[in-house]
Amino acid sequence: MGIVLQGGTIVTAGDVFRADLRIEGEKVSSLGLGLTRTDDTVYGVDGCYLFPGGVDPHTHFDLPAGEIFTSDDFFTGTRAALLGGTTTVLDFATQFHGESLAQALRNWQAKARGKAFTDYGFHMAVTDWSESVAEEMDLLAREDGITSFKFYMAYKNTLQVDDTVLLQAFRKTKENGSLLCLHCENGDLVFDLTREALRRGERSPRFHPLTRPVAAEKEAVSRAIALAEAVGAPLYIVHVSTRDALAEIVKAKLRGLKVYAETCPQYLLLDDSRYGAEGFEGAKYVISPPLRPAGHQEALWQGLEAKVIDTLATDHCAFNFRGQKELGREDFSRIPNGMPGVETRLGLLYTYGVKSGRMGLSDFAALTAANPAKLFGLYPRKGTLAVGSDADVVVWNPEGSTALSAGTLHQQVDYSPFEGFKIEGKAEYVFLRGRLVVQEGRLLDVRPSGGYVFRSRRSEVGTGGNKRA
Amino acid sequence: MGIVLQGGTIVTAGDVFRADLRIEGEKVSSLGLGLTRTDDTVYGVDGCYLFPGGVDPHTHFDLPAGEIFTSDDFFTGTRAALLGGTTTVLDFATQFHGESLAQALRNWQAKARGKAFTDYGFHMAVTDWSESVAEEMDLLAREDGITSFKFYMAYKNTLQVDDTVLLQAFRKTKENGSLLCLHCENGDLVFDLTREALRRGERSPRFHPLTRPVAAEKEAVSRAIALAEAVGAPLYIVHVSTRDALAEIVKAKLRGLKVYAETCPQYLLLDDSRYGAEGFEGAKYVISPPLRPAGHQEALWQGLEAKVIDTLATDHCAFNFRGQKELGREDFSRIPNGMPGVETRLGLLYTYGVKSGRMGLSDFAALTAANPAKLFGLYPRKGTLAVGSDADVVVWNPEGSTALSAGTLHQQVDYSPFEGFKIEGKAEYVFLRGRLVVQEGRLLDVRPSGGYVFRSRRSEVGTGGNKRA
Amino acid sequence: MGIVLQGGTIVTAGDVFRADLRIEGEKVSSLGLGLTRTDDTVYGVDGCYLFPGGVDPHTHFDLPAGEIFTSDDFFTGTRAALLGGTTTVLDFATQFHGESLAQALRNWQAKARGKAFTDYGFHMAVTDWSESVAEEMDLLAREDGITSFKFYMAYKNTLQVDDTVLLQAFRKTKENGSLLCLHCENGDLVFDLTREALRRGERSPRFHPLTRPVAAEKEAVSRAIALAEAVGAPLYIVHVSTRDALAEIVKAKLRGLKVYAETCPQYLLLDDSRYGAEGFEGAKYVISPPLRPAGHQEALWQGLEAKVIDTLATDHCAFNFRGQKELGREDFSRIPNGMPGVETRLGLLYTYGVKSGRMGLSDFAALTAANPAKLFGLYPRKGTLAVGSDADVVVWNPEGSTALSAGTLHQQVDYSPFEGFKIEGKAEYVFLRGRLVVQEGRLLDVRPSGGYVFRSRRSEVGTGGNKRA
Amino acid sequence: MGIVLQGGTIVTAGDVFRADLRIEGEKVSSLGLGLTRTDDTVYGVDGCYLFPGGVDPHTHFDLPAGEIFTSDDFFTGTRAALLGGTTTVLDFATQFHGESLAQALRNWQAKARGKAFTDYGFHMAVTDWSESVAEEMDLLAREDGITSFKFYMAYKNTLQVDDTVLLQAFRKTKENGSLLCLHCENGDLVFDLTREALRRGERSPRFHPLTRPVAAEKEAVSRAIALAEAVGAPLYIVHVSTRDALAEIVKAKLRGLKVYAETCPQYLLLDDSRYGAEGFEGAKYVISPPLRPAGHQEALWQGLEAKVIDTLATDHCAFNFRGQKELGREDFSRIPNGMPGVETRLGLLYTYGVKSGRMGLSDFAALTAANPAKLFGLYPRKGTLAVGSDADVVVWNPEGSTALSAGTLHQQVDYSPFEGFKIEGKAEYVFLRGRLVVQEGRLLDVRPSGGYVFRSRRSEVGTGGNKRA
Ligand SMILES: [Zn+2]
Ligand SMILES: [Zn+2]
Ligand SMILES: [Zn+2]
Ligand SMILES: [Zn+2]
Ligand SMILES: [Zn+2]
Ligand SMILES: [Zn+2]
Ligand SMILES: [Zn+2]
Ligand SMILES: [Zn+2]
Repeated sequence: MGIVLQGGTIVTAGDVFRADLRIEGEKVSSLGLGLTRTDDTVYGVDGCYLFPGGVDPHTHFDLPAGEIFTSDDFFTGTRAALLGGTTTVLDFATQFHGESLAQALRNWQAKARGKAFTDYGFHMAVTDWSESVAEEMDLLAREDGITSFKFYMAYKNTLQVDDTVLLQAFRKTKENGSLLCLHCENGDLVFDLTREALRRGERSPRFHPLTRPVAAEKEAVSRAIALAEAVGAPLYIVHVSTRDALAEIVKAKLRGLKVYAETCPQYLLLDDSRYGAEGFEGAKYVISPPLRPAGHQEALWQGLEAKVIDTLATDHCAFNFRGQKELGREDFSRIPNGMPGVETRLGLLYTYGVKSGRMGLSDFAALTAANPAKLFGLYPRKGTLAVGSDADVVVWNPEGSTALSAGTLHQQVDYSPFEGFKIEGKAEYVFLRGRLVVQEGRLLDVRPSGGYVFRSRRSEVGTGGNKRA
Repeated sequence: MGIVLQGGTIVTAGDVFRADLRIEGEKVSSLGLGLTRTDDTVYGVDGCYLFPGGVDPHTHFDLPAGEIFTSDDFFTGTRAALLGGTTTVLDFATQFHGESLAQALRNWQAKARGKAFTDYGFHMAVTDWSESVAEEMDLLAREDGITSFKFYMAYKNTLQVDDTVLLQAFRKTKENGSLLCLHCENGDLVFDLTREALRRGERSPRFHPLTRPVAAEKEAVSRAIALAEAVGAPLYIVHVSTRDALAEIVKAKLRGLKVYAETCPQYLLLDDSRYGAEGFEGAKYVISPPLRPAGHQEALWQGLEAKVIDTLATDHCAFNFRGQKELGREDFSRIPNGMPGVETRLGLLYTYGVKSGRMGLSDFAALTAANPAKLFGLYPRKGTLAVGSDADVVVWNPEGSTALSAGTLHQQVDYSPFEGFKIEGKAEYVFLRGRLVVQEGRLLDVRPSGGYVFRSRRSEVGTGGNKRA
Repeated sequence: MGIVLQGGTIVTAGDVFRADLRIEGEKVSSLGLGLTRTDDTVYGVDGCYLFPGGVDPHTHFDLPAGEIFTSDDFFTGTRAALLGGTTTVLDFATQFHGESLAQALRNWQAKARGKAFTDYGFHMAVTDWSESVAEEMDLLAREDGITSFKFYMAYKNTLQVDDTVLLQAFRKTKENGSLLCLHCENGDLVFDLTREALRRGERSPRFHPLTRPVAAEKEAVSRAIALAEAVGAPLYIVHVSTRDALAEIVKAKLRGLKVYAETCPQYLLLDDSRYGAEGFEGAKYVISPPLRPAGHQEALWQGLEAKVIDTLATDHCAFNFRGQKELGREDFSRIPNGMPGVETRLGLLYTYGVKSGRMGLSDFAALTAANPAKLFGLYPRKGTLAVGSDADVVVWNPEGSTALSAGTLHQQVDYSPFEGFKIEGKAEYVFLRGRLVVQEGRLLDVRPSGGYVFRSRRSEVGTGGNKRA
Repeated sequence: MGIVLQGGTIVTAGDVFRADLRIEGEKVSSLGLGLTRTDDTVYGVDGCYLFPGGVDPHTHFDLPAGEIFTSDDFFTGTRAALLGGTTTVLDFATQFHGESLAQALRNWQAKARGKAFTDYGFHMAVTDWSESVAEEMDLLAREDGITSFKFYMAYKNTLQVDDTVLLQAFRKTKENGSLLCLHCENGDLVFDLTREALRRGERSPRFHPLTRPVAAEKEAVSRAIALAEAVGAPLYIVHVSTRDALAEIVKAKLRGLKVYAETCPQYLLLDDSRYGAEGFEGAKYVISPPLRPAGHQEALWQGLEAKVIDTLATDHCAFNFRGQKELGREDFSRIPNGMPGVETRLGLLYTYGVKSGRMGLSDFAALTAANPAKLFGLYPRKGTLAVGSDADVVVWNPEGSTALSAGTLHQQVDYSPFEGFKIEGKAEYVFLRGRLVVQEGRLLDVRPSGGYVFRSRRSEVGTGGNKRA
């Protein structure tokens, strides 16, 4: 009564080898040859790769932004994720001013429960610091499996916290074994440059990147590392977009600090020439940090190759061009920040990373699954195809290619920043905890079966064999 | 008729998980639970780690040095290796002046054949360059499975080659898919400093490190990288010993170069205070590059943690203190350079890396087995415990501890540089290609069963899933 | 009716040459041989150096600090300065909360007028930012000759300003041709570390440096440069104390930024071992930034030699050990921060810089006089011995040596941090605008004759021949 | 019977001030106002700058290159120099294989004696090392005033020396107080790339820069510094052309090494796009190191501004396009390397450095005169306008502008690399040791009056007040 995936090539962060994979219940039970038992269901996957189900550590589903919400909620967002080969997402539950963390968590649980097609967990984004919030962090880490907390160095007057708060937060995460995630841009500098730009009458999307320069990210990364080092706490830097920030991170790693870096496909594949598009088209690319000048992309690819960037996330934060992005037609600073991507992460990295010869299959598995799982307390349940792990398996058929298009993608948003990009291969089958949920690229069931994942603290599990992911 | 190792924790470069491992013939056939079949031999390994057999990519057995030979030949050297958990060694076959590479290879085949307890392969060390030697490199790579070639930037007037030779050699290895290994010290600087020292009457071992300063390594590493980059060829730097050299290597990796770094336990655990020992005792530590001032060791550990050092080798090159090291009693420059270590590599890294909390078990497996196997064309046959790999398995019992001592080690040399160092755990069983060869820390058979391994070129196998090890 | 200094060696930032110097009225009228005219007063200065009168760009006279004031006011402070060879000081007029800059300036004018033995000017320290304060900056620069403004990144809740204020201030100084001076330490980090230290019961002076680590300065310097660069404004960093901060400054200079660095004798000659002194003795060295670990001093000396540190100031901010420093007996954070030094600057740099062979006489003149004069709009009136310059001349007799001691110094404070330091030579005569005011090391008159110096803006004078000082 | 230059602005490396300058005999006798005595000749120089006569530390007059000689000999070369405001040149006397240094010196003395319009000295270029050559170095430094020695790391098989020679040479210059000058390009790399290029049939001038890449200079500079540091000797790096080399030099300066950098106008004002010119036109720019990609020029300007480049030389090494450069029509590697520039150095730096606002007048004087004079033992006789210095004065009239053209320049070569460049102002009068030699831009006399300058060693004079120029 098990399932055997027969004839494929198993890919993990450590190995690539020909073997069958057998599933019992929700778990991988064995790897080898001739594993099939009576009553087993056998899927022939000759010529396919078996990837560990993708873990996307950075999404924003159903997130309020002023008067509106991101266009993808947990239902549509995780459905798209699954079809793209991602079986676990970590979304940012966000505390708004005046709320307790408990309230914020309840809000996000309500958004996700019963609506998720993938397994899911939450980081908690803290924006309104107090002594009692600090104490709640312990509670969440211990009782709720929320073992990562995000802060913002940007978005002055709304999400931004100052260095004194960051220092206290680092102390807290150090104590309770959780991991501090940080959006690193100097919000004061962004605020000042935006005000100056608007004063000069600069209102179209092409001014967006000029108000969030490379230096704003570099400065914030450098400062964040200094604060983390002073306290002795680990630090996870979300969406690294520049060569300059990466250089700071590498220096930190080389002096022994536990500083981890995330990047996203958009920072690898798109540059700031997009902002020069006709009319208001540039609004599609209004994200923070912004797309960067040519040259930074190559530096980030080299960071992936040199293993100094640890994870590939999406920062999926979708807004429709029509009706949503358009709110900033007269003022770029009012364009809701963000773009979609949860569905296209694996395909893009496979195509432009692996097939292009930049990285190996194991590097792919490390960046899309193993490393985020290890860093965020999901490993060994998620992130690999080892005996005993959740049977989250992506059967990737490397044959054929397609061109990405908003029209055929399943994300609920009216454009794709990667429109027209060619993708090699596709997620032919996807198994979520042993259950076949995607077949021939189509969702098998309309009922969401994703569950909440309670995450471990660093003190409990280390990082699954690696001291550093 | 298989073998099942039951109840252990399997450790690879990617994963750590509880599972049984089944061996059929020379290969790992499956991983999982309940794998045992009738007639299988079952070994209970509860509480033990199953490591991939160690791959030591840097040994010098039976090497002539002037009038003498290194004290360990393939028989004694590989025996010690096996007892320490290393199942494959790559030794440096060395061309001496006037020899063809074919002749050098025959010499080394004669030294090893029938005498090795581990599997073994050869790098070819080239010291007498010519057009015909260049052509022989292609032949060796294609016909003999010799897919790495070593050159020396030091040892002026004997082994050293100039930059013009290096450039041609890089072109050749680039073409034929092999990997150039390089001893990086500026030999002219060493030559000059040595001559000056002797002129001043500085003759004791404590002057050895002063004639091979940090700058000599850094300069050579920097230059080697420039030459490799000019040609576009990969480069493997043996025995990196300094923070300064490592910094150059990291810069190279970050601009996308395929530059790999090896270090050795002695550079992690010993410093140059050893040269200050009473009398002639410092001669035990006369190696090149020398032990370094305090501080460099920590930087190398951080390099391991940051994954910018790729492999841990031994540079096992043993000379007895009595009768061999003593040849330099009156002149440190005549002390044969080298120290033993092939037996103690795994134990030291497990103890001072893993148990100390500096790294995870997977990092250990990557450094001691997977990475050298991938870089040198042995993977996936060697370096991991995947289905289909050679069943080279080390069953590491983490219980208990011992103190290292030349008296109880099996290396054929009258001292150990790590005398008195505590080791946690031990290699309880060792399997070589499915055959139990070490049990309870004792060699089971006196007949060597190691074989020659024909290695792949980079163009054939990539690096086993990772683009970079 | 002129004065001729005959037989000496004239030292400027560019040259060292034997010549007589003739003074007419307040000015240098000629340099040469045989200049004496009838009625001239001739001073034989054979064997002596003629230095340009020292310009100390960083003093705090009569500064309120809580309930107390610095122990030196303008009368005693400038008297000591003059006896040490400094003929011009720039003091920090400080705006306190609720004050306008005009009020602050009036306060400082009242402190100085009629009481100064040297010429003097003011930087304006801005601590309470507003739109009207911004406008006052223009007025001060234009009408009052206040062409430099200081801000603090440290002293949270009192003097510290945030990045948004700094950005606006940089815009303002860029517009009006003045120079922004910055105390660079991350005040939030200092605040946090101090609070943590006190919570742990760490109360003695030796904890002071631990709450103001190297990283706090480096971080602030790095951030300040990023902000200055974003705006395109010049930046003068006061009292650089670390190798790390200097490295940031050099990177800035090398990418063409107008970033200038000041250091002080205490950071060159004393290290943090002073905090380990018996009892409360360490309080004498409680300054911010603190004395640094051994090694930083050498790096700063090398910065002077490489001309990447531009000025040598004193940050003279004297508090008596008895009664003043003692306010912090039970809590290091209540020790008033600062130490004396205005009298010993030239002697220390001459002895430990020039005589030790680290620098030449011209470097000495550049650091102590020409560079501060050029950067702060005093040149060519001050800072050199050119024709037409104010005849502020120090006749330095290099013969003999003395040991520094609070007992014989003229600063009004009960200790010297340089107690016992040997000084080679001394200021034999000092002329202030052509008037002999110090003879044989003794003040000639008890009536202060210093005047206020109205300083130029960068746009008006450049920097006196050098684009950068 | 003196001369008075009345009404000008005196410019030195330290100061800019209005004063008259009086000359007696060959020397500056006084600076001031009202200096004129009976019988003095007075020149009104209102509105003009008085610059110290230019010191060009890098020329190649009458240099054999294969079958030909550089097109300018001492007669035509120094005549052009003088008209451009340069009153002293240091030419490279060159030892050819088999010659003693004494022979080489005699050769160069014969070339120059009686034919020079400027004062002149020699560096000795050593290309054929031996024990006796080493001893001759002492003799030249002591007896002949040759206190600098040049070596080449490039030009394999002709001028190039290996690291062992360099180390011995550094020891020798350290001992005898002279300065080692070094052409830094890795000659083996150039050799290899040239051979490969020719093998591929790449023969036109545009392949020249590809065979001498940025990395070749950077590598050599880095290595040279390591060797100098090992010995503890100072090092002067000629014609620095890249951002990368400069970065190495700055690191060296910051760790306290006496490493000095020279650059030339061509590396500041021209880039490698010149090699793309039609036909064989690119040959005009075939120099070594070559012109560099866009971006390096700006970095060098910033190096000048940050005072980490010490001197501006010309590397004047002229070959006619017709008949000389053309020797390499079929093979770029046979094009004689070099370009003219001795006449245009001051005008270019004044125009593109001072007038453009990049540097001040004192910086100009430092780079063109004071620093080379100080570094090479000519100061205070040359390099400044101090009392007692040689009255080498350039009266620069800043009014008017001209366009450079080979047709109106006096260099004996049929093209100018700066053809069409606008020059602001001109050398109106030039005085050589008190004698008016150029008036209204015209040579007054056809008889050369330049003399040989015997130079000091570092041990004798320091560097004239600055420890570092
Ligand atoms: Zn963000
Ligand atoms: Zn986000
Ligand atoms: Zn070696
Ligand atoms: Zn070796
Ligand atoms: Zn301060
Ligand atoms: Zn101060
Ligand atoms: Zn040259
Ligand atoms: Zn030259």
